[in-house]
Amino acid sequence: MQNTQATIEWWAANGSIIFESLGILAFALSGLIEAARKKLDLVGMTMVTSLAAFGGGTLRDILLDRRPFYWVQNFAWIYIIIGLCAVSLVFVRNRHLDLTERAMQWPDAIGLGIFTASGTQIALMANMPPVVAVIMGTITAIFGGVARDIVVNEIPKAFINQEPYAVIAFTGGWIVVIGNALGWASFASLWVCALVTIAMRLATMIFRWRVPAWRV
Amino acid sequence: MQNTQATIEWWAANGSIIFESLGILAFALSGLIEAARKKLDLVGMTMVTSLAAFGGGTLRDILLDRRPFYWVQNFAWIYIIIGLCAVSLVFVRNRHLDLTERAMQWPDAIGLGIFTASGTQIALMANMPPVVAVIMGTITAIFGGVARDIVVNEIPKAFINQEPYAVIAFTGGWIVVIGNALGWASFASLWVCALVTIAMRLATMIFRWRVPAWRV
Amino acid sequence: MQNTQATIEWWAANGSIIFESLGILAFALSGLIEAARKKLDLVGMTMVTSLAAFGGGTLRDILLDRRPFYWVQNFAWIYIIIGLCAVSLVFVRNRHLDLTERAMQWPDAIGLGIFTASGTQIALMANMPPVVAVIMGTITAIFGGVARDIVVNEIPKAFINQEPYAVIAFTGGWIVVIGNALGWASFASLWVCALVTIAMRLATMIFRWRVPAWRV
Repeated sequence: MQNTQATIEWWAANGSIIFESLGILAFALSGLIEAARKKLDLVGMTMVTSLAAFGGGTLRDILLDRRPFYWVQNFAWIYIIIGLCAVSLVFVRNRHLDLTERAMQWPDAIGLGIFTASGTQIALMANMPPVVAVIMGTITAIFGGVARDIVVNEIPKAFINQEPYAVIAFTGGWIVVIGNALGWASFASLWVCALVTIAMRLATMIFRWRVPAWRV
Repeated sequence: MQNTQATIEWWAANGSIIFESLGILAFALSGLIEAARKKLDLVGMTMVTSLAAFGGGTLRDILLDRRPFYWVQNFAWIYIIIGLCAVSLVFVRNRHLDLTERAMQWPDAIGLGIFTASGTQIALMANMPPVVAVIMGTITAIFGGVARDIVVNEIPKAFINQEPYAVIAFTGGWIVVIGNALGWASFASLWVCALVTIAMRLATMIFRWRVPAWRV
Repeated sequence: MQNTQATIEWWAANGSIIFESLGILAFALSGLIEAARKKLDLVGMTMVTSLAAFGGGTLRDILLDRRPFYWVQNFAWIYIIIGLCAVSLVFVRNRHLDLTERAMQWPDAIGLGIFTASGTQIALMANMPPVVAVIMGTITAIFGGVARDIVVNEIPKAFINQEPYAVIAFTGGWIVVIGNALGWASFASLWVCALVTIAMRLATMIFRWRVPAWRV
């Protein structure tokens, strides 16, 4: 009983750091794979990886007029991203790795769930109306990938490939809104939202669901 | 006489809502046509339509450090845009519509005039120097279209096609500056500027005037 | 002796204006050459030239939440840029000029050094941690060129061409950090940083050094 209490307290204190870090690492990994596929140099890799990891949260903070940014407050991440890119460049360049477009989607799904949850929560705490908070969560989750694609000169995958991606973020975000309305603890809303969103994304990847589009 | 007075009061109270709404709908329509031409899916359509409708005003507000954004304060617009995209997807996809590049230009001209006027006015009220206010009006008017083109991976039409577009916004914006200097009522400056700007745009479309460019 | 004192005072008062103006003109020139090479029209030229000259500093100020922007406070620059584009359009279009990609790199190197220095300094004065200040300096120095390339629909040269460019800005920026820590006068840190950064850039251009990249 006391154990459960201690566990809850530990999660309330450290959970959000673990949560955010998981999301950042997942998106950084997706950016790294994309950068490798495009054969960018070390600088381009660092930029694309950083944009994928921090682009969504930074745009959300600009829109909400929040400062400091996550990567300013936790600037150790700058060294981590540079190190990650340098190490993977050295270790990976000399062997054949089949970096398929599909490989990028697994870490990407984890980032999608986590950033949808944290983005929506942060916007709600900034007194945004529910639908705006969910849009902010969606922007947090997808803009990193959109910026990554624009920088490497592609139409953003999220806008054109008919896979349910932004739709899933937009749907999942409401879980945080509902959780808050029901008085759940903050970390509970966050994790439930993230896990459901990740599960929805994996389901659409496995069952190949599609968003309607104009007939070709 | 009293009737005229009442009319002026009614316009002072409600005119700006009608004015802004007309501009948003006009730009949203231009975004919708572009999204359909590019065969984007429902998510991409919503994004491109939203960017076209709110991108210019949002960038202006970021540059002026103004909050809340129009779409945050009037968040019903988020549902309207999503609904508009969903409905047009369902109704239009099953019939042949010849969505020419030209079709987009008519609503776009209306949006150009309205946003030039309101963007310049808002910047003047934020104490910007006249030329900066006119630049802000121009940004409000053209950035939605620029973002729309960048997202679908084209060189922004406003920068390359030699049609006078940004030039017209930059010229028209001075009408608001002059109107304010002459002490006109705010809604008078806005409507005169918008109508003259729209007329200039239509004239250049009909008479095919061109901006000078480098020789090919 | 008194002469030296007067010289130092004069530089402390006017040096930063000369410094900034040199950087802006250098980047504006690089934007102008790129716009001419892409055969943009007068509007596109003005936009690309303005983005190259003010894009980096504006993004830095948005990230740091600083206002007013340089081009708002010194709005005469808006007329200078427009005039520069109009004049060069009139004078250059009628003669053959071999505007090679290489021609752009000389003024660009000067802009790189100056904006790295001023961007890092401004971020330090806004109480950013050293590594964040250097990143802000790097963003100030490279984002103008990145925006210029994105707008003309190319993968930003800074991310892909393996020339040490952002790396040089990131390295050079630390000179300002070190100078401040050692208690140098502000204009001394700025000029030493700028000159060393320009020298490094020229060296890499002349000796064709390369950043490691994925094997093709």
